[in-house]
Amino acid sequence: MEAVLGIDVGGTSIKVGLFSPEGDFLEERKIPTPALVSPEAYQVVTDGIAKVLAAHDTTPDEVIACGLDIPGPVADDGHVGFLPNIQLDPEGLVSAINAAYPNAAVAFVNDCNAAALGELWAGVAHDVSSFVLIALGTGVGAGVVVNGQLVSGAFGAGGEVGHITVNYNETRTCGCGRHGCLEQYASATGVVRLYLEECERRGVTPVHVEHATDTLSVFRALANGDECAKNAIDQMCEYLAMAMAQISCVIDPAMYLIGGGVAGSFAVFAPELRRRFQAHALSTCKDVAIEAASLGNQAAMYGCAYEALQMRKRTMGE
Amino acid sequence: MEAVLGIDVGGTSIKVGLFSPEGDFLEERKIPTPALVSPEAYQVVTDGIAKVLAAHDTTPDEVIACGLDIPGPVADDGHVGFLPNIQLDPEGLVSAINAAYPNAAVAFVNDCNAAALGELWAGVAHDVSSFVLIALGTGVGAGVVVNGQLVSGAFGAGGEVGHITVNYNETRTCGCGRHGCLEQYASATGVVRLYLEECERRGVTPVHVEHATDTLSVFRALANGDECAKNAIDQMCEYLAMAMAQISCVIDPAMYLIGGGVAGSFAVFAPELRRRFQAHALSTCKDVAIEAASLGNQAAMYGCAYEALQMRKRTMGE
Repeated sequence: MEAVLGIDVGGTSIKVGLFSPEGDFLEERKIPTPALVSPEAYQVVTDGIAKVLAAHDTTPDEVIACGLDIPGPVADDGHVGFLPNIQLDPEGLVSAINAAYPNAAVAFVNDCNAAALGELWAGVAHDVSSFVLIALGTGVGAGVVVNGQLVSGAFGAGGEVGHITVNYNETRTCGCGRHGCLEQYASATGVVRLYLEECERRGVTPVHVEHATDTLSVFRALANGDECAKNAIDQMCEYLAMAMAQISCVIDPAMYLIGGGVAGSFAVFAPELRRRFQAHALSTCKDVAIEAASLGNQAAMYGCAYEALQMRKRTMGE
Repeated sequence: MEAVLGIDVGGTSIKVGLFSPEGDFLEERKIPTPALVSPEAYQVVTDGIAKVLAAHDTTPDEVIACGLDIPGPVADDGHVGFLPNIQLDPEGLVSAINAAYPNAAVAFVNDCNAAALGELWAGVAHDVSSFVLIALGTGVGAGVVVNGQLVSGAFGAGGEVGHITVNYNETRTCGCGRHGCLEQYASATGVVRLYLEECERRGVTPVHVEHATDTLSVFRALANGDECAKNAIDQMCEYLAMAMAQISCVIDPAMYLIGGGVAGSFAVFAPELRRRFQAHALSTCKDVAIEAASLGNQAAMYGCAYEALQMRKRTMGE
């Protein structure tokens, strides 16, 4: 049976997903790995994959595509840029995969872009020709799809919507060195900071937050009627709505998808986000669909599998 | 000889351009017309075109495509929206063109989108797969090209970059009903207003401006050392650079083209615009090319001809 692999490359482990060429999800397996820079580490990866394949009566020759999603920049030509958060030798890993699965097209995809492609292949954006997936996590990333194709950008900055300026009066500096970026307010880090700041401003004791990105505690406080939590989430919605209104003036997508860790509470903040978007957007596009991403943390695995499959089709001139 | 027509539909006249299928410009003719809503008016158009064709030994049967660019919204499916500034019955005109040129594919294109396609076909953006043409005229419009394709948007708002919010503190209302849109500062109307306001603020007498969009007088004043004119043009550059920085965070184009009436003075303000863009943009994309559009007021004529040709190719499955 022909099969497609989607491999989510993380800092201390990889997740391998097995798919049919039609996008049916067959199995997922987590493989703890050392730094992916040595033949021994590559062997751990291919051994783990071998077990997944064996469980589905698939031979190595039947793997026709293998996508790898990574937390870093991938240029239009597939070249992998600097990866600050993981140890990975892209060329070494590709060589090992080529040797193990000689018929597989191999593609690297940036994780936010992969998540968008996943939603396009098998998620809520299936057959939607233009949409933006905004991932609210430690930072704010996005995958932009226009005319059915990913927009990675001439300099790899396509989908950097976390750095749209939403507050020209901000004095605090963003990680990018600029001021007032969406990421400063709508990331998990931003939401927790806005909450703690509001508590300080009002002189009230905040609920205990576990760490700098613990939005779960903020949303729990909101559910318990915490006014400071409400203020923080309202601000998050306000800035996110403002950024989305700008995006719509450029590409006017048919749909927005909200993903990432913060989207676990999407149902809680969606009405506020939609209301504020309607207030900020051009009237022609104010009724755009705003939905939760549907594939959760499997989205990128789906998406990189899809991209490898597309690459195979392009190569074979299908 | 096979030929392609690009027809620029205006309020009181149309301009007909004749092109080879390869994009060579052969001739342009201006035809004064009454409102394009009657068989007599359509006849004036086809008679005018007949003269252009005769001068180039082209028979009506050899016209393989005919594009019409119009100052208003055209949806992805080619449907023409409300046209506030011209009198035109789209279906009547298409019927007349179909009858006169039975082998021609006919397409309507919004004028800003058409200008972008013109630059893609035969202008400075030839073979550039992603770029944004920003037209600074009475208002601010744009044509967005990504992955070699026009982005018209799910609700027809693709390229509405004139309504990117660049000043959240603005109290004056934009034509769209919102506040602080780029168009309020970087349109010809905006530049003239900024100039007159600055003169009033400083208590100096402005140079004579002929009308509300007479930026030529403002640029002439700038050349003569007028400090208020310098302030107005600097503000225009500042807001335009801010909007472009937002656009780059979404689609990260390889090139910006500045067109429209104000672009006649591009050489004067380009250094300031580039400097301010570098200050506002994400560092990865700060060196994007910012150039003047190259086809002037013929761009839309080129572009609608190109779109009709593309439509023919799609229909014929080439």
